Amino acid sequence: MAEPAPLHIAFLLYPDVTQLDLTGPAQILSRLGNVRLVLVAKTRDPVPTDAQFPLLPGATFADVPRTDILCVPGGFGTVAAMEDAETLAWVRQVAEGAQWVTSVCTGSLLLAAAGLLRGYRATSHWASRDQLAWFGAEPVAERVVFDRNRVTGGGVTAGIDFALALTARIRGEAHARFVQLSLEYDPAPPFDSGSPERADPATLARYRDMVSRFAPDRAEKVRAIAARSA
Amino acid sequence: MAEPAPLHIAFLLYPDVTQLDLTGPAQILSRLGNVRLVLVAKTRDPVPTDAQFPLLPGATFADVPRTDILCVPGGFGTVAAMEDAETLAWVRQVAEGAQWVTSVCTGSLLLAAAGLLRGYRATSHWASRDQLAWFGAEPVAERVVFDRNRVTGGGVTAGIDFALALTARIRGEAHARFVQLSLEYDPAPPFDSGSPERADPATLARYRDMVSRFAPDRAEKVRAIAARSA
Repeated sequence: MAEPAPLHIAFLLYPDVTQLDLTGPAQILSRLGNVRLVLVAKTRDPVPTDAQFPLLPGATFADVPRTDILCVPGGFGTVAAMEDAETLAWVRQVAEGAQWVTSVCTGSLLLAAAGLLRGYRATSHWASRDQLAWFGAEPVAERVVFDRNRVTGGGVTAGIDFALALTARIRGEAHARFVQLSLEYDPAPPFDSGSPERADPATLARYRDMVSRFAPDRAEKVRAIAARSA
Repeated sequence: MAEPAPLHIAFLLYPDVTQLDLTGPAQILSRLGNVRLVLVAKTRDPVPTDAQFPLLPGATFADVPRTDILCVPGGFGTVAAMEDAETLAWVRQVAEGAQWVTSVCTGSLLLAAAGLLRGYRATSHWASRDQLAWFGAEPVAERVVFDRNRVTGGGVTAGIDFALALTARIRGEAHARFVQLSLEYDPAPPFDSGSPERADPATLARYRDMVSRFAPDRAEKVRAIAARSA
């Protein structure tokens, strides 16, 4: 019996991405079996991430006119990527024929800016989630949100839960359990500070202070992009 | 007041590394504040990983004669790296002056092969953990194990818990809680199959079958390396 056609997975890569938004789900989805996974960027040059090392694209936008699964990661570079017409055009193009249009963290804002979440339930990093409404999406306070073929994950590490849930949809729960065991995904966070509901007020204040120093006009920029795209 | 000297973090990079062993902790440790993080390999060429995309070294062994924190990831490529004298020599050299000598997943076998875990309590990927005893280490069935300045994490995703625990040791618990919130690390695995104790027998059998097909002589090779290094 002939092997079925491989499933093509494309991750969007852009400057100052939060690399774990991409590398977490890529680790899991690379174990779907019979997949071709590629990081796609404007050029083949190394792309700086937020973690002091670059990622290397395997293809350019022009090389990848279609894919089965699109995954858009987030990060502090997301706003600049949302302002880039070429990036949005590629995301729209490959999303059109994709079986699954997905994101992790603030990658959902980029999907939204491309017009791909209007009328969809979706999530994002907790600190940005409400901004999805500016683009006509319905923000949902869950770690992984499926709505038709749109699948969005929460902040950064939610990409691991997202990818396991998607694995189960595509290859069945038994395969997802196998991948989970192979990656020893039996999390044991040393602290309970992973959501704004659980973090103490000092930790929350410290996070908001960091954002206001590091990206003071982020929300205004996102709102302006939403206004232009409406 | 002068800024204190930055903390230097070096991740060993070698072919067929499990990239999430490296990229998970790198995401967290890059948020320690005042750090210089670098991926180090034999040459500057892109290094293939197990997830269908390469990682790009920022430095060669010769470029990095010392570091404050050494982290060695694991993967199916670990055994070949353990057989490489140049790799072991670099690991021994930088470990000598390091404040923290660490690993994720089967990276601990490489530390052990370099003679760095003799007499130390340590962990590894659940399927390889017992092999640490061949090198004179004491295998411990915990997700993160501290013993003096050696810190070892369990399989793949344990690297996230490891890095948060190390963050707390270095910068204090409040900083670790802040990093946890920033990465929304509030894990919610869709299944409970992340350890051999929790996985069902069919999932366990499938894992063992995959290893016996993909790396049939792995255990024998590790045992032979241990015998030579004793």
